[in-house]
Amino acid sequence: MKASRDAALGVFDSGVGGLTVARALRSALPNEPIVYLGDTARVPYGTRGAATVIRYAIGCARKLAQYEIKAIVIACNTASAVALPSVMAELDLPTIGVIEPGAEVASETTRSGRIGVLATSGTVASGAYQRAIANLDTRAEVTSVAAPLLVPLAEEGWTEGDVPRQVVERYLEPLARANVDTIVLGCTHYPLLSEVITAAARQAIGDHVRIVDGARAAANATRTLLDERSLARQNPVKGPDVRILVTDRPASFEVVAERFLGSPPGPIEVVDL
Amino acid sequence: MKASRDAALGVFDSGVGGLTVARALRSALPNEPIVYLGDTARVPYGTRGAATVIRYAIGCARKLAQYEIKAIVIACNTASAVALPSVMAELDLPTIGVIEPGAEVASETTRSGRIGVLATSGTVASGAYQRAIANLDTRAEVTSVAAPLLVPLAEEGWTEGDVPRQVVERYLEPLARANVDTIVLGCTHYPLLSEVITAAARQAIGDHVRIVDGARAAANATRTLLDERSLARQNPVKGPDVRILVTDRPASFEVVAERFLGSPPGPIEVVDL
Repeated sequence: MKASRDAALGVFDSGVGGLTVARALRSALPNEPIVYLGDTARVPYGTRGAATVIRYAIGCARKLAQYEIKAIVIACNTASAVALPSVMAELDLPTIGVIEPGAEVASETTRSGRIGVLATSGTVASGAYQRAIANLDTRAEVTSVAAPLLVPLAEEGWTEGDVPRQVVERYLEPLARANVDTIVLGCTHYPLLSEVITAAARQAIGDHVRIVDGARAAANATRTLLDERSLARQNPVKGPDVRILVTDRPASFEVVAERFLGSPPGPIEVVDL
Repeated sequence: MKASRDAALGVFDSGVGGLTVARALRSALPNEPIVYLGDTARVPYGTRGAATVIRYAIGCARKLAQYEIKAIVIACNTASAVALPSVMAELDLPTIGVIEPGAEVASETTRSGRIGVLATSGTVASGAYQRAIANLDTRAEVTSVAAPLLVPLAEEGWTEGDVPRQVVERYLEPLARANVDTIVLGCTHYPLLSEVITAAARQAIGDHVRIVDGARAAANATRTLLDERSLARQNPVKGPDVRILVTDRPASFEVVAERFLGSPPGPIEVVDL
């Protein structure tokens, strides 16, 4: 597929979480318009088999390709882990996932080689970060913790106070025991809790601990990719910069979307896959 | 379908949560063997459209019918809300859901007519309890609260201490403001948190508040149904009393299953639908 500098970035996720990636992209690449597709009819992907996730991801990517895009950002950990090569082969567009960029920043950041990963149960069980980090540094020791309460806390906007602090403290215990010096936020929902995670990690491990935001890592990797391929847009976007498509629209999507995107989302369009 | 007294109760849910219903059934009907099907490959049902849930529910019920059963208990709120008549029509077996029994006990229990419902976002949005209670008592005032953090708390077994207490206190605020005297636990996961919910509700509303456990209500309704139709088994079960089938087996299912069932689950069989 021929890509033009003026085309948009296509971003998809199983739901609303990937809007943190859209937000990071907007911040890293303020000139680039974004088309975001949340596959809310089939969320979550984390519990499905690999073949199903690949089929869903290709469906999302094909839909995005109808909107004149120049690159695809897979803002979903599950789809990034299993469907990235298939999406790239199918659409012949530059494609970036959220796992490799986070793994790369983590392995560049760590001094001790001991890296912690906070993620959903599905992502932890898949071992995707473990593999991605091992590919970059075979000596790295990765400790992964499933943190299922963080998704509903982020979606409810419950990001301050005793409850999120105590929940985060509990999930950090194994990472403190492993004495990691770097923690990857391996779920698109977690950047909403980065303040409480950072504060609790400093308390539990020390001020030297570094938090790697997977969304920001993916946005920076996208910037590098656009530069390398001379695909970066030269002029600022006119009009709304993030166009949002969903496959099903729960009443609560709009409220949650604002929380994740950091600004009101504009009209949300429902599409069929 | 001809039902025999000695046949089992077939119970299905989208996942592990319905095991609280199996547990309540075992307690209310200790003579009855149970075949439990958790459709773990397609969990959760709450985000799917009604047609899809009906298709899934009929698939589950047909699979259970291969195991010589005399009645079906739909231990899933979403499926109970939309698929009960379809399942009953398809299999021609006595069928019980979890919503009507909970609504019935609540409307018998309340004195003020002000009833609270704690449930998942999907169940609250569906208005299923609201409708079921209105069918029984048009003057009842129902206040529903979506309590998304309670599912991961129950699944992690985090049912004691500050965090569950504060989470529950927050969800009870709208119910205290509405001055309800009866609260229905409208999600199969919540019985695991009934102690903390009861304590917090007494604190927030008063000692007169009553908590209706939907799982126990469904079990009692099943006992009544078996008695009415002369389907109750006369002799105690020999051998394991709950046979568990799942459509996909996440590594964590067994651990969580014990928490929900209240005893080790025995071998878990994987079946195709």
